[in-house]
Amino acid sequence: MTEKLLGSIEAGGTKFVCAVGTEALEIKKRVSFPTTTPEETMALVIDFFKQYELKAIGIGSFGPIDIHPESPTYGHITSTPKLAWQDYDFVGEMKKHFPLPIAWTTDVNAAAYGEYVAGSAKGLSSCVYYTIGTGVGAGAIQKGKFIEGFSHPEMGHMIVRRHPEDQFEGWCPFHGDCLEGIAAGPAIEKRTGTKGQELSSDDPIWEIEAYYIAQAAYNTTLMLAPDVIIFGGGVMKQRHMMEKVHDEFEKLVNGYVKTPPLKDYIVTPKLEDDPGTIGCLALAKEAYEAQ
Amino acid sequence: MTEKLLGSIEAGGTKFVCAVGTEALEIKKRVSFPTTTPEETMALVIDFFKQYELKAIGIGSFGPIDIHPESPTYGHITSTPKLAWQDYDFVGEMKKHFPLPIAWTTDVNAAAYGEYVAGSAKGLSSCVYYTIGTGVGAGAIQKGKFIEGFSHPEMGHMIVRRHPEDQFEGWCPFHGDCLEGIAAGPAIEKRTGTKGQELSSDDPIWEIEAYYIAQAAYNTTLMLAPDVIIFGGGVMKQRHMMEKVHDEFEKLVNGYVKTPPLKDYIVTPKLEDDPGTIGCLALAKEAYEAQ
Repeated sequence: MTEKLLGSIEAGGTKFVCAVGTEALEIKKRVSFPTTTPEETMALVIDFFKQYELKAIGIGSFGPIDIHPESPTYGHITSTPKLAWQDYDFVGEMKKHFPLPIAWTTDVNAAAYGEYVAGSAKGLSSCVYYTIGTGVGAGAIQKGKFIEGFSHPEMGHMIVRRHPEDQFEGWCPFHGDCLEGIAAGPAIEKRTGTKGQELSSDDPIWEIEAYYIAQAAYNTTLMLAPDVIIFGGGVMKQRHMMEKVHDEFEKLVNGYVKTPPLKDYIVTPKLEDDPGTIGCLALAKEAYEAQ
Repeated sequence: MTEKLLGSIEAGGTKFVCAVGTEALEIKKRVSFPTTTPEETMALVIDFFKQYELKAIGIGSFGPIDIHPESPTYGHITSTPKLAWQDYDFVGEMKKHFPLPIAWTTDVNAAAYGEYVAGSAKGLSSCVYYTIGTGVGAGAIQKGKFIEGFSHPEMGHMIVRRHPEDQFEGWCPFHGDCLEGIAAGPAIEKRTGTKGQELSSDDPIWEIEAYYIAQAAYNTTLMLAPDVIIFGGGVMKQRHMMEKVHDEFEKLVNGYVKTPPLKDYIVTPKLEDDPGTIGCLALAKEAYEAQ
């Protein structure tokens, strides 16, 4: 008899990463599908999971999403600019095919949870996880609970102060030069005409980028004072970035708050590319145990 | 036989407000003393409470303070610019005179707790409470727990974007024109030469002030998505301010996040001048019940 597995769906705006794994959070198989329409993408997702005997599924989805269990639209993606997915009943669709416990949160909350249970925040009481990639998002956890209220956070759209040498107007359709509008991957490409991963590490754009990411870290420190702040996503694959972010952060704080040592406080994900998958598996495990 | 009472200390940078009250959070007696030196001020505090039979005391203190029970400096005020109070063992001193359960948190956390148990956030799952007065500070609660990690938040020093018509350089000794540096009471007085309460409600300063307070509300919405954001403190006694803050907040959000209706979401304290005292009494009650 095969051991039943846990399912994980990292539903991103570009691709869906689906995986199955064990209660020990060991990933057994992982695949990815492009995010097109719910009909196309979800058919692939369902076919993938139908190969396995599952006991629960954890979903971390792009958003905004409805996270309130008592809401009639719980489990839906809500006002996303990806029109095909607007008001899509993600959990409802999954429940039709898999009548199992299903955990439901944002993609960044799931990644935060992965780092919390098995990565940089393991053993700590709180963490904030940012992804700086095609967009900017963040999830926050304190003592095992996601930070949330009327909805989940949308930290990627916080107000930042412009770098004096940055003339780029920002590309966020809602806020122009909010953090996402000015610091996500597309903002780098729109300024330089080149994708970030093709720019040299001494390109002046990285100083500007670090200035904005450091503001995110600074505001996060003042708003939440978490035990650790983790920056993942494509932009942070530029390993030289972290030192620049630390330098800018120190200038901003200017001695006002005594954080943990920066090498332990503002970090990249210990789980590297896996925090989302590990987080979804861990959430699936919890949903299974809670039923 | 007299009923034993709960003690409350709101320890502010200007004055200490001490009170005794009942388990029903009814304030029986309240006094205030100027904040001078620990020797002088604490002698008055101790004399006041010695008149009563107490079962527990709740303290909400100006900070930064050490909130970690396992720390050797738990209960101390730490790196405050008020030199006489630096490294002062507040809880230790109280324990010497009152061997009782003592709750210990920041002044703004205590006020947030008051509104959470008995004010604008009663029955909700989370809230953030700001005071905009001599300084700017905030406390946050989710499901009965304070938001905290390596320390307590210091939201008053968040980064804001300057109003285009504001030339004031800011007075925060650490950050210049952070929120506190540009929007606290002294920033109003330094710009206009007049105390805020003496300015007319159509003075252009209030538009500028609302622009900054709305940024605090906006960033708070994106970082924490609380059920309600409460703005107290002297500046918010200008009742015309709230409408201006709502207007600026709507412009900033620009439809991106669907908050609760603004009249219920960004509010002044329902407990008016009492959230701190009520919060300290409620925390004292909890400390008594938890022992």
